Amino acid sequence: MEVFSSKLLQAAVDSFTRLPGIGRKTALRLVLHLLKQDPDVVESFSQSIQQLKNEVVYCKKCHNISDSELCSICSSHGRDPSLLCVVEDIRDIIAIENTGQFFGLYHVLGGIISPMDGIGPKDLNIESLIERANNPELKEIVFALSTTMEGDTTNYYLFKKLSHLNLKLTVIARGIAIGDELEYADEVTLGRSIINRTPYEHSLSR
Amino acid sequence: MEVFSSKLLQAAVDSFTRLPGIGRKTALRLVLHLLKQDPDVVESFSQSIQQLKNEVVYCKKCHNISDSELCSICSSHGRDPSLLCVVEDIRDIIAIENTGQFFGLYHVLGGIISPMDGIGPKDLNIESLIERANNPELKEIVFALSTTMEGDTTNYYLFKKLSHLNLKLTVIARGIAIGDELEYADEVTLGRSIINRTPYEHSLSR
Repeated sequence: MEVFSSKLLQAAVDSFTRLPGIGRKTALRLVLHLLKQDPDVVESFSQSIQQLKNEVVYCKKCHNISDSELCSICSSHGRDPSLLCVVEDIRDIIAIENTGQFFGLYHVLGGIISPMDGIGPKDLNIESLIERANNPELKEIVFALSTTMEGDTTNYYLFKKLSHLNLKLTVIARGIAIGDELEYADEVTLGRSIINRTPYEHSLSR
Repeated sequence: MEVFSSKLLQAAVDSFTRLPGIGRKTALRLVLHLLKQDPDVVESFSQSIQQLKNEVVYCKKCHNISDSELCSICSSHGRDPSLLCVVEDIRDIIAIENTGQFFGLYHVLGGIISPMDGIGPKDLNIESLIERANNPELKEIVFALSTTMEGDTTNYYLFKKLSHLNLKLTVIARGIAIGDELEYADEVTLGRSIINRTPYEHSLSR
């Protein structure tokens, strides 16, 4: 590991290196880039991150990142309240919204069940999902989780928790390659997989 | 361009997107990663950048980033003051220091002459280089700039400015990188490496 000529520089580079996918060379390049900018650019950079962390609000209904109590999707009159899509993370909402194929509401789990990473059902927004599932307006829940073992485990867990309700439970079609992450799927494939969602029983065969 | 559910999120992602080589997906991934960290991690991240920007000191001799008036290289007694290496940027100092092959002092130009980018000699630390070149202790200046047209232009400009002094002016060797196959080397590099061939004994040390 190289030694920098300045402790302040070292600290800033170390900060960037802790981000996922950022190595030491990239970190140094980013820090030196910021150092060349006007002071107000750097200030707005560090403030925007600090402000997000301090003031972030999660939608009390779907747990999406929001500016107010209810996110823009939950508070929209144009969305179908009979249809609910369960996702892992807000990046998946962005990906699905970009397909233009889904007009219902979302529910962000905040992760998936992953014993390897010590993430169990208690760590996810499952209680509030079950509460929402009891809403008589609701007709269908679409599971749109990663097509991985953890995703399947989570699908199965949710199916068990929800199957006694009079709801259609569906899983997005596996047109997307198994092992791929939703975020990186192309929009056509992801859109198709929403249109072709299948009854839960059919989704188990890999 | 996607629309986020939160203006704060949007602002933080926009901040990261302004960094070189960071696209929107990467920016979102980095921001969501920070959002999952403890508040003090995020605070130290944004503070380390802000602090570097506000408190950074450049070495008054070589313009390296420093914690004090003189950087650790300029103030070291172990360096050879008769040898000066001219580099573009502090990253080049780190790269050269990592080779363990240079024991002189440095001079950071802060860029290279690039009319396309509107960078002229006045924008670089050339005045102070000429001042240092008049130091009777100095015997040799090594130009270690990019092997591009801009680097060549800058080398030529500096050579003209310094050639009247009784100094040895050298340029780092250009040739085939160690480990490269001749077959894939470009013609200019290969041609240069033949013209500037060195005695056999000197080529062995890696």
